[in-house]
Amino acid sequence: MICFASDNRAPVHPKVMEALAAANIGHAPAYGEDKWTGRLNDRLNVLFGREVYPFIMFGGTGSNVAAMAHLTQGYSAAICTDVSHMNTSETGAPERMAGIKLLAVPHSDGKLTAAGVEKHARALGNEHYAQPRIVSLTQATEFGTVYTPDETRAICDTAHHYGMYVYMDGSRIANAAACLDVPIADMTVNAGVDAVCFGGTKNGMMYGECLIFFDKWVGKRFIFTRKNMAQLPSKSRYISAQFCALLEDGLWLSCARMANGSARYLAGRLGGFNDIKIVFPVQTNQIFLEMDAKLALELKKDFNFYETGGGCYRLVTSFDTGKEEADAFIQKLHSYGCR
Amino acid sequence: MICFASDNRAPVHPKVMEALAAANIGHAPAYGEDKWTGRLNDRLNVLFGREVYPFIMFGGTGSNVAAMAHLTQGYSAAICTDVSHMNTSETGAPERMAGIKLLAVPHSDGKLTAAGVEKHARALGNEHYAQPRIVSLTQATEFGTVYTPDETRAICDTAHHYGMYVYMDGSRIANAAACLDVPIADMTVNAGVDAVCFGGTKNGMMYGECLIFFDKWVGKRFIFTRKNMAQLPSKSRYISAQFCALLEDGLWLSCARMANGSARYLAGRLGGFNDIKIVFPVQTNQIFLEMDAKLALELKKDFNFYETGGGCYRLVTSFDTGKEEADAFIQKLHSYGCR
Amino acid sequence: MICFASDNRAPVHPKVMEALAAANIGHAPAYGEDKWTGRLNDRLNVLFGREVYPFIMFGGTGSNVAAMAHLTQGYSAAICTDVSHMNTSETGAPERMAGIKLLAVPHSDGKLTAAGVEKHARALGNEHYAQPRIVSLTQATEFGTVYTPDETRAICDTAHHYGMYVYMDGSRIANAAACLDVPIADMTVNAGVDAVCFGGTKNGMMYGECLIFFDKWVGKRFIFTRKNMAQLPSKSRYISAQFCALLEDGLWLSCARMANGSARYLAGRLGGFNDIKIVFPVQTNQIFLEMDAKLALELKKDFNFYETGGGCYRLVTSFDTGKEEADAFIQKLHSYGCR
Amino acid sequence: MICFASDNRAPVHPKVMEALAAANIGHAPAYGEDKWTGRLNDRLNVLFGREVYPFIMFGGTGSNVAAMAHLTQGYSAAICTDVSHMNTSETGAPERMAGIKLLAVPHSDGKLTAAGVEKHARALGNEHYAQPRIVSLTQATEFGTVYTPDETRAICDTAHHYGMYVYMDGSRIANAAACLDVPIADMTVNAGVDAVCFGGTKNGMMYGECLIFFDKWVGKRFIFTRKNMAQLPSKSRYISAQFCALLEDGLWLSCARMANGSARYLAGRLGGFNDIKIVFPVQTNQIFLEMDAKLALELKKDFNFYETGGGCYRLVTSFDTGKEEADAFIQKLHSYGCR
Repeated sequence: MICFASDNRAPVHPKVMEALAAANIGHAPAYGEDKWTGRLNDRLNVLFGREVYPFIMFGGTGSNVAAMAHLTQGYSAAICTDVSHMNTSETGAPERMAGIKLLAVPHSDGKLTAAGVEKHARALGNEHYAQPRIVSLTQATEFGTVYTPDETRAICDTAHHYGMYVYMDGSRIANAAACLDVPIADMTVNAGVDAVCFGGTKNGMMYGECLIFFDKWVGKRFIFTRKNMAQLPSKSRYISAQFCALLEDGLWLSCARMANGSARYLAGRLGGFNDIKIVFPVQTNQIFLEMDAKLALELKKDFNFYETGGGCYRLVTSFDTGKEEADAFIQKLHSYGCR
Repeated sequence: MICFASDNRAPVHPKVMEALAAANIGHAPAYGEDKWTGRLNDRLNVLFGREVYPFIMFGGTGSNVAAMAHLTQGYSAAICTDVSHMNTSETGAPERMAGIKLLAVPHSDGKLTAAGVEKHARALGNEHYAQPRIVSLTQATEFGTVYTPDETRAICDTAHHYGMYVYMDGSRIANAAACLDVPIADMTVNAGVDAVCFGGTKNGMMYGECLIFFDKWVGKRFIFTRKNMAQLPSKSRYISAQFCALLEDGLWLSCARMANGSARYLAGRLGGFNDIKIVFPVQTNQIFLEMDAKLALELKKDFNFYETGGGCYRLVTSFDTGKEEADAFIQKLHSYGCR
Repeated sequence: MICFASDNRAPVHPKVMEALAAANIGHAPAYGEDKWTGRLNDRLNVLFGREVYPFIMFGGTGSNVAAMAHLTQGYSAAICTDVSHMNTSETGAPERMAGIKLLAVPHSDGKLTAAGVEKHARALGNEHYAQPRIVSLTQATEFGTVYTPDETRAICDTAHHYGMYVYMDGSRIANAAACLDVPIADMTVNAGVDAVCFGGTKNGMMYGECLIFFDKWVGKRFIFTRKNMAQLPSKSRYISAQFCALLEDGLWLSCARMANGSARYLAGRLGGFNDIKIVFPVQTNQIFLEMDAKLALELKKDFNFYETGGGCYRLVTSFDTGKEEADAFIQKLHSYGCR
Repeated sequence: MICFASDNRAPVHPKVMEALAAANIGHAPAYGEDKWTGRLNDRLNVLFGREVYPFIMFGGTGSNVAAMAHLTQGYSAAICTDVSHMNTSETGAPERMAGIKLLAVPHSDGKLTAAGVEKHARALGNEHYAQPRIVSLTQATEFGTVYTPDETRAICDTAHHYGMYVYMDGSRIANAAACLDVPIADMTVNAGVDAVCFGGTKNGMMYGECLIFFDKWVGKRFIFTRKNMAQLPSKSRYISAQFCALLEDGLWLSCARMANGSARYLAGRLGGFNDIKIVFPVQTNQIFLEMDAKLALELKKDFNFYETGGGCYRLVTSFDTGKEEADAFIQKLHSYGCR
């Protein structure tokens, strides 16, 4: 059974496992006072080319929600796309935990546009409307597409013009970075992003995300929000050590490149079939395709993947997906007589 | 430097590390659909001698808060001791995330009493008062003491009489179980407890707790609260595999016995010093003692431990604390001329 | 200046003022223990033809939010139209105070349809999605249209099939009742509605709404939610006395009939103008019309009314709006050369 | 039956009723755009001798909770006395609606002390502790005592030193002002208070409180919090007109003086009885006394008043309580053979 179901089904990268074993020596301070966390902070400063304010977190939903909570007031709203994870797949956690209203705007290839921000900016100052205070981008998007630095900057400029923060949900930011091939700072802080969740779990880690603020005053108070949202890991060294491994020799990017490369290779070969229609540009590690329901049923005998609704299916690759898995999929299509 | 600072500073138990490595093979379903989680559920059914409704969680604060949220309404209150972790050390997460009021009652050797429950039961039915709906016990308590099954039953009987649930914060439940030496069911569900957090992180795991409900109808809906509180781990196998290792051959109990044994051994030897006063009965892996501030300062050169305020200090042992560490502490006391 | 801006700009009905004066004699129990509140409860039992569970509230937003909070859990969602007051005009209070997610579905002439409920019912049971638990209808709708008892019943049947409650935001329920001309029970509880906010403020009262539950067990616990949401009036007699006046000799209906009648009369005359387009069926006391922006500007010299966006304008009548005000508007249109 | 049960059982002052009738002319803008609200704002500026930022609110609990919500973050705590209304009698609304933790400190004659603030200030900076951000004083206190301007200033100085705001719950601030006989500014803003709820309901109004901020930047954003907490009255003129009447010719003070005077007169006469012990200094309109339970039972045949627990009883006077009511109470005591 070959798995294209999700990158959170993939195993932990061997180098990450090694790092966990290496960190497992004796007692170490908890709650981020350990040396691995210190090291991680140093490496992130280097990676972003400035002092950043990073916080390790348990998970992605927790990171999104805690960021929202930290950057808003009770009467605030967050602007996001209608298909954003925050809006569709977090069981109302943003509303419950951060207490805010989500203003979902129609996406374009999975992406938010400055026009979507403009539309809701009209609510500003009207006491009857939740006040938009934060714009949330997912990078790479839920449909695998990627904001260029220019696209990000346009949204940030609009958001900042209206006094809003920009948050980047980067659970797949490595895939976006590998696609864009620009320095991570250029696609985040230099483009105006105020906070980013630098994802680990979907890129070869066992668990853990890293929420990074770029403003010192905003960031330094986040220690309180993190714990207030139950996202402070006690044995912090085990998350930080994983991240350090990912940042060593660019492993985070090579993992992402592997996943992206396999997806593009597979998408390229899928492009040869008239029976299959690829729905969104394949820029990272997700392929959305339309095909016959009966064909999908047959394929599910040998491959794990999800239907996303309405005859659309999603294939996700991981750092450990190779040409062989892609070729096996294509071969199976041929065996079913697809063309 | 010998560490008596906290059991969350200890490393991961080697057998747990082995289990993590063993689980790291290929792709596996996420969100609890994996076979390790299935196995864990089976083992917990056996351990408790009935069908239980377990949910793996990221952390202890998250477990406490999500349990509160699940078992209460907005106008509810939770009764706990004034020194409970929930009341003192969770940065207001219960109030913010569960939306409830905590009614803190004075502890007796760290423990809550039925009288404390009775006192607040008077609020029931009065629309101006938050309605007590849940009683939270910490087992072992924040001061290392342990509720006997009879003590637990007395509290549960009182709570149930008033229509309240009883939740057990068991981040150190293994230490309590090792101390009591009774079947885990007898100190929880058979004594009337409605939900328990079965702790892993402080007992040799890397991360992860397991929140267990004993009522099917209440428990089965918890999947929604878990995600709503951002406590659903995606790569679930890695928490479940750790717990499976802990439950194999009673490792969870032998780890706890080791920690408890070392604490008792050390406490026994400390008892010989007039310059040192042990504050609470040493029943598990925590020793609270009073000593001269200058002596404490000297000891901190070689040992990590915390002051808890007012000239009181806390020593915590772990599964990896042995006689040698205890002896070293005693020896150092002698070297400072203590008697 | 003639006012078509809103029914909350109208004065208090003289009979309501009389009732307030009459209630202002000596001391009276607070928090609903007074005799006026007892009398109100009796009258509501008669009006609905059964025992109901009514709670006086300060305001409409408070009623909506408290009802949501009372009928949901943290992981719940409420289904409402995209144009519902709850979704557009309560500054995120439902999300913040009730902690729920709103699932806004497209309206049809301001109304929700059973299909909108069906669509979101698919989320039930999926732990990643907020769980729809309540359906909220506005009666009369934000566009002045009215659900027939059959339409309400169809939605309630669908909602109940999926285990959801149905709440009716009735800030203008009198206008709907006057339009439908059926017993109030037939358009609420007999059609399946579980709770209704029986509006007073927009129908001649000074302040106050009445939230009514039809199930005893659900209703009797609402005293706690009301206070927990800061909606418990202390000097309760002054709200109850107003409602008693409204219920005396059907004043609530005659007020609404007056407002509806004036709106229909005006709409009828507006129908004769080609330059003006009435957007929604005029069933109660609101008229939505499209007209030239310059014309609107001229009219605003003599009449108060709001633009609702996109060249659409709203005229609202009240219990004190008569033919003269309508005729004056028509006359002014003629004077501007409209046809 | 003479009523000493509560000042919220008293009727509305005749001059307030007159003002309501006078305001009931024609249509008027809603949501605070009306001329009465404008007039109220002007009068408050004069009263406080500076520009203030006032917001009419439905009720006292709503004012307290909305102020807390506005001045805190999610991880914040509020310091108050253990007997404060906020802590004991608001059904958990502060925790639920503002999401904060209350840190209740022991009172001294109903009052908070700077030491109580100091104690919790130690939590500042520790990520495991809710961060004290606001200090709440009740003026007059729940036991009828009054903070002198110096006492208030001492608390404000301490609070500000630690970066905390000071909020004054002034549901009975008129009684405190009448007692202190100093300008209202001197007992609030000049003493360092950041926000005050200027109570109306307990001082002769029908309903309504006025929340006043003294800082422009903080205050101007409160319009959003007010609506987000469901405390924005639509027909605003009817609250503002009542307050204008109260502020006319110092009616607010003369009402309070009447109530205070009657309480002091009664307390003076009660002082002559050995069978009765007055518990707290009688400074405003509340008397707390200890007496025999059987005596209390007899008195309740002719007087309404509450037991506050443990053999303690509360008598409350209002603007309409005169010597006769006090004399009747004393006479009854004599008739029961008290001395």
